Amino acid sequence: MRKIHVIGIGSGDPRQLTLQAVGALRGTDVFFLLDKGEAKSDLTQLRRDMLDAHLPAGAYRVVEARDPERDRAAGGSAYSPAVGDWRSARAGIYERMIAEELGEDETGAFLVWGDPALYDSTLGILEEVLERCAVAFEYDVVPGVSSVSALVARHRTGLNRVARPVQITTGRRLAEGFPEGVDDVVVMLDAHQTFRRYADEDIDIYWGAYIGTPDEILVSGPLAEAAPEIERVRAEARERKGWIMDTYLLRRNPGRR
Amino acid sequence: MRKIHVIGIGSGDPRQLTLQAVGALRGTDVFFLLDKGEAKSDLTQLRRDMLDAHLPAGAYRVVEARDPERDRAAGGSAYSPAVGDWRSARAGIYERMIAEELGEDETGAFLVWGDPALYDSTLGILEEVLERCAVAFEYDVVPGVSSVSALVARHRTGLNRVARPVQITTGRRLAEGFPEGVDDVVVMLDAHQTFRRYADEDIDIYWGAYIGTPDEILVSGPLAEAAPEIERVRAEARERKGWIMDTYLLRRNPGRR
Repeated sequence: MRKIHVIGIGSGDPRQLTLQAVGALRGTDVFFLLDKGEAKSDLTQLRRDMLDAHLPAGAYRVVEARDPERDRAAGGSAYSPAVGDWRSARAGIYERMIAEELGEDETGAFLVWGDPALYDSTLGILEEVLERCAVAFEYDVVPGVSSVSALVARHRTGLNRVARPVQITTGRRLAEGFPEGVDDVVVMLDAHQTFRRYADEDIDIYWGAYIGTPDEILVSGPLAEAAPEIERVRAEARERKGWIMDTYLLRRNPGRR
Repeated sequence: MRKIHVIGIGSGDPRQLTLQAVGALRGTDVFFLLDKGEAKSDLTQLRRDMLDAHLPAGAYRVVEARDPERDRAAGGSAYSPAVGDWRSARAGIYERMIAEELGEDETGAFLVWGDPALYDSTLGILEEVLERCAVAFEYDVVPGVSSVSALVARHRTGLNRVARPVQITTGRRLAEGFPEGVDDVVVMLDAHQTFRRYADEDIDIYWGAYIGTPDEILVSGPLAEAAPEIERVRAEARERKGWIMDTYLLRRNPGRR
């Protein structure tokens, strides 16, 4: 039976690999690396560097594939169907890679930035591949340090306040309104700096980009003051590197509202 | 200047230590271990085993202290003040330990289960110690694999569904009602199996106790069926070990509601 590890590799700092992840890397014959295109090719390189650091050369094979482009033009309510199409296209690619590149008694691995449990599609796609019944395999999940944990560690703050909840959501959701019933909100996948909508509220922001890498940028403070600075440094960094991965925590001050 | 690492050590499986955490352990002169009392002394032993596994004997000192008892009898609205009193008592203990046991040029460390960012008081207490100005130090945070990430990895599922939010909250909050605006809710610190309140709704539960340890127990399925099983195995385990640490994800099925 083919085996597959889905390995969380941390948010960008190679020292965030867990001992369990290193063990899983060492037990892997074939690594499947999905490339999101030229712009983020440093991320592909960073994963290759991790393999080099922990595995003897020649001990493993790497299979690279190009991620199908998600239809980002489809906005609003069209988001979910577009994701569905993209996920099916990706399932087809995964299925072929596993069937053609992984031997019956071999172990493959997908390397996932952060933690595979947060806003990553790998687990859902593998389930879809299994449902198609064209190729059989077992898989397990190696949890990783999420970009959310890495963000707040760098800011030396917690995710929740004492006995209070925290919500993790997307920029798209935040654009619909500040979530009900929570004052601590982590926002991921926000290409539009949606935090700007709330700049006149009593909210602190803890923002970071390229967390854990040499390009890391951190900005925090009252949203009214920090928002313009984040806009500026984010635009500069995006221009310079061609891509950006950022996330942030919004902390509303209920007492002062 | 004294230095302190606040190190996330994962949710119970010693292989969840990150390379960064191992590096921080090796750079530490004095470990401060807070004991929650007899019942959870296996957790103290597990931390000592981690030190043994990664550090040469005699290379470090361990300072143990007893956690002040939190006033758990104070329920309802008295929760926050009781936490405040407990936190101040703890700040006093931390302050004395740091001042008396850590040399001016030494590095100390607190080992935190899971990730220091989630429902852990260490960062808040260190800030309180600094505000008292009796002892000065620098500190940093080493993020860890949270018990939340470990839970869903073992269940091979994600925290959020595609493009949807997830909320992390407490049993006490869940008792006040299912959170607004989310269908995926992780519940921590629930001594009362509050999920039972929702057993007649179309909700799946992914439950786990002692995650990552040899005692690990996992139960998942539709809440109506899983709830009685969890009640049973939880009571048995708690009786056998004298304590339990469990957490769970509730996943409401909006389509079928």
